[in-house]
Amino acid sequence: MTSGFAHKHLLGIEGLSQQEITHLLDLAESAIDVSRQIEKKKATLRGRTQINLFFEASTRTQSSFELAGKRLGADVMNMAVAASSVSKGETLIDTAMTLNAMRPDLLVVRHHAAGAVALLAQKVECSVINAGDGAHEHPTQALLDALTIRRHKGRLQGLTVAICGDVLHSRVARSNILLLGAMGAKIRVVAPSTLLPRAVERLGVTAFTTMKEGLADADVVMMLRLQRERMHAAYVPSVREYFRFFGLDQEKLSRARPDAIVMHPGPMNRGVEIDPMIADGVQSVIREQVEMGVAVRMAVLEALSRNLPNA
Amino acid sequence: MTSGFAHKHLLGIEGLSQQEITHLLDLAESAIDVSRQIEKKKATLRGRTQINLFFEASTRTQSSFELAGKRLGADVMNMAVAASSVSKGETLIDTAMTLNAMRPDLLVVRHHAAGAVALLAQKVECSVINAGDGAHEHPTQALLDALTIRRHKGRLQGLTVAICGDVLHSRVARSNILLLGAMGAKIRVVAPSTLLPRAVERLGVTAFTTMKEGLADADVVMMLRLQRERMHAAYVPSVREYFRFFGLDQEKLSRARPDAIVMHPGPMNRGVEIDPMIADGVQSVIREQVEMGVAVRMAVLEALSRNLPNA
Amino acid sequence: MTSGFAHKHLLGIEGLSQQEITHLLDLAESAIDVSRQIEKKKATLRGRTQINLFFEASTRTQSSFELAGKRLGADVMNMAVAASSVSKGETLIDTAMTLNAMRPDLLVVRHHAAGAVALLAQKVECSVINAGDGAHEHPTQALLDALTIRRHKGRLQGLTVAICGDVLHSRVARSNILLLGAMGAKIRVVAPSTLLPRAVERLGVTAFTTMKEGLADADVVMMLRLQRERMHAAYVPSVREYFRFFGLDQEKLSRARPDAIVMHPGPMNRGVEIDPMIADGVQSVIREQVEMGVAVRMAVLEALSRNLPNA
Repeated sequence: MTSGFAHKHLLGIEGLSQQEITHLLDLAESAIDVSRQIEKKKATLRGRTQINLFFEASTRTQSSFELAGKRLGADVMNMAVAASSVSKGETLIDTAMTLNAMRPDLLVVRHHAAGAVALLAQKVECSVINAGDGAHEHPTQALLDALTIRRHKGRLQGLTVAICGDVLHSRVARSNILLLGAMGAKIRVVAPSTLLPRAVERLGVTAFTTMKEGLADADVVMMLRLQRERMHAAYVPSVREYFRFFGLDQEKLSRARPDAIVMHPGPMNRGVEIDPMIADGVQSVIREQVEMGVAVRMAVLEALSRNLPNA
Repeated sequence: MTSGFAHKHLLGIEGLSQQEITHLLDLAESAIDVSRQIEKKKATLRGRTQINLFFEASTRTQSSFELAGKRLGADVMNMAVAASSVSKGETLIDTAMTLNAMRPDLLVVRHHAAGAVALLAQKVECSVINAGDGAHEHPTQALLDALTIRRHKGRLQGLTVAICGDVLHSRVARSNILLLGAMGAKIRVVAPSTLLPRAVERLGVTAFTTMKEGLADADVVMMLRLQRERMHAAYVPSVREYFRFFGLDQEKLSRARPDAIVMHPGPMNRGVEIDPMIADGVQSVIREQVEMGVAVRMAVLEALSRNLPNA
Repeated sequence: MTSGFAHKHLLGIEGLSQQEITHLLDLAESAIDVSRQIEKKKATLRGRTQINLFFEASTRTQSSFELAGKRLGADVMNMAVAASSVSKGETLIDTAMTLNAMRPDLLVVRHHAAGAVALLAQKVECSVINAGDGAHEHPTQALLDALTIRRHKGRLQGLTVAICGDVLHSRVARSNILLLGAMGAKIRVVAPSTLLPRAVERLGVTAFTTMKEGLADADVVMMLRLQRERMHAAYVPSVREYFRFFGLDQEKLSRARPDAIVMHPGPMNRGVEIDPMIADGVQSVIREQVEMGVAVRMAVLEALSRNLPNA
């Protein structure tokens, strides 16, 4: 079968072409309706086995993948692995190879170490989907963000997108920068200088250290979660100070275009990186992002399953 | 489609009419047989998504809802949410709205705070079932108790039901008082005065502080679990003393009618509120209550799903 | 329906005949292909309810039973029970009888106490499968080991099998000794004398205290996991010393037959009981054991379900 997405795994946005991204977004577009039906069920993955292997807890992402798999008819098995039992590199691989021997078709993996998912993908025969690896990538988040933007703006090409907050620790930021860059958007990052990666301009973005400048005439304001648990003590800003300078409130948002949309990957720290009034306001598309998450994961599961051996 | 149960949610017994309760019990009656078949499976909820959202652990209730949903053909997803992650009111709502955006049809919620489930129901589009909220209500427990009684006594009207033990902290007692009252039973509560709500007679029950009086000629003896974890230190009775005065043993039970049935919502503290010989004795219907639990939950899921938009 | 396996439960290998073991292995042989199909799904257990009740955590065994049940079309429900909530014997039985009242067909149980699963089986109406009870038995592990050996050697009769390591604390060793004995293999146990049961020869095995002697001309080298958590402090060997004398490395393995296979029930302590080079080497069949685990569990579930009432 011919496919617009010829990869075995989805380990990141890096390396995907504009055509491949568009193919996945188009596939996701048609998956939205499945979840809006009374009978939210397709037979696409009937008899397929999907294992969700989460070395880091994530209620939201795991639920989204679980519903995506079940709505496509797959048998879905969740495995939460306590970090303590995988202190040695060998054990990660042993866990993966043990699961592989149970003959899953699709393995969805979240791990606290950047690169762990790619390492694991080399050892197994099934398709692997990166559901977040350390500060590296979170490709399905970037795809669902892109789908949400495209549905509101009709395109990604040429849009001005401001990614605001803890860019340094954010795999969401990294995957979004890669995807939006590939699709021809103009990307800004807005953060205190301590939360910006060094030489961030090399990624093809423009850096700002004030919201006033960074949000000016933006089409999309994408807030990031403040990852206090990932920061070294010295770098942690006070919540009050952070909100004053980088929290999204009505005044800062007024710098963006009047039809700008506001995004957040969740879970939100209300009153820290975003004013609750904005989070629940008319420009917010935060709930829609969650719905698009299920659709994008259905699209990725379906696209990868087409490329499995003997399929 | 015409329905004998026109509500969108099941948040409590309060507000249900005798006709609506009877409708649910009749529906449950026909659901009993499904679980007794070799193939315990209907297609009623095929393609529907049911999410069990438990902010408080409950092996028994969650299992019962999970099996009920699966036997009706639904896709069931369990979510255990640690209390620590929902310390702020906003987060409860954010969690609910996030799940809502994944387009479930039925959301089964247990929460440690009275009223939390009703609050949540205002924010979501799907049907919400209260699986226990603080000391407020536990409607499916009252329904399964009523079904068990009706199957043994042929009716609820006019029966003398003694609800014994920690009435003060019990959502089970509260929902049972509301349901049995609506159905015309004569309700007694039997407890030490420190474990009775103030002005309990306003609920339409007669209060007793000795088992000897409270159980005299009762048709149904309904024991409650001693909720030591919900009590303030000063109120906690010693186990030995509690059993002596309020634990159900053969002597106390002999005051009830010879054909009285003995009930307990589980899990039992054997030797605290009930003598193991009585728990496993001929008058006990405790195991049957568990079976009726699955049937009642199937009935509630089915009744609510008929009222969903576009159904 | 006539069946080669007429038992209601699978509580252990003890008491199974050669014919019954062969029947289960043959059934498992035909189940292997199901998991190798694109659509890994049979309708054998459609509408049946399987509950996995694990009083001890076991990612591997529980996953294997979960996939086995799902691939046979059963509704599978996992229940992890914290050890703390079952401190009293009554509670184990109450938990079992509560689940039984929910009308499962198959109950898969792991418990830390030898004999607990058999006790529980006396109280319920459904079929019970022992997934490991203390140091007593782990019958499906022995069956999957036997299947793996038979596929490589064409038979079990007459083979020399060396079971090496912590024999004293191992339910895997015990079930394997019973099964291999019933099938006519020559069984050796190889361990430091402190890790051998007293009077181990009564089990029909030959005991060795050096790997050099114990592995000589063996057809199968079966390593055990060092169960440090089950040992009293005084008995725990140092890891370095243990590996030197009883860890499987190339030198020790060279004493066995050149076509000997190397087995391990997992999870492995690499560098403790086995050299990583051997674990991943050409003689290792460790990954295949995992695959056979799913097949054997499918066979057991299917064989027991045929014997259920009304089936």
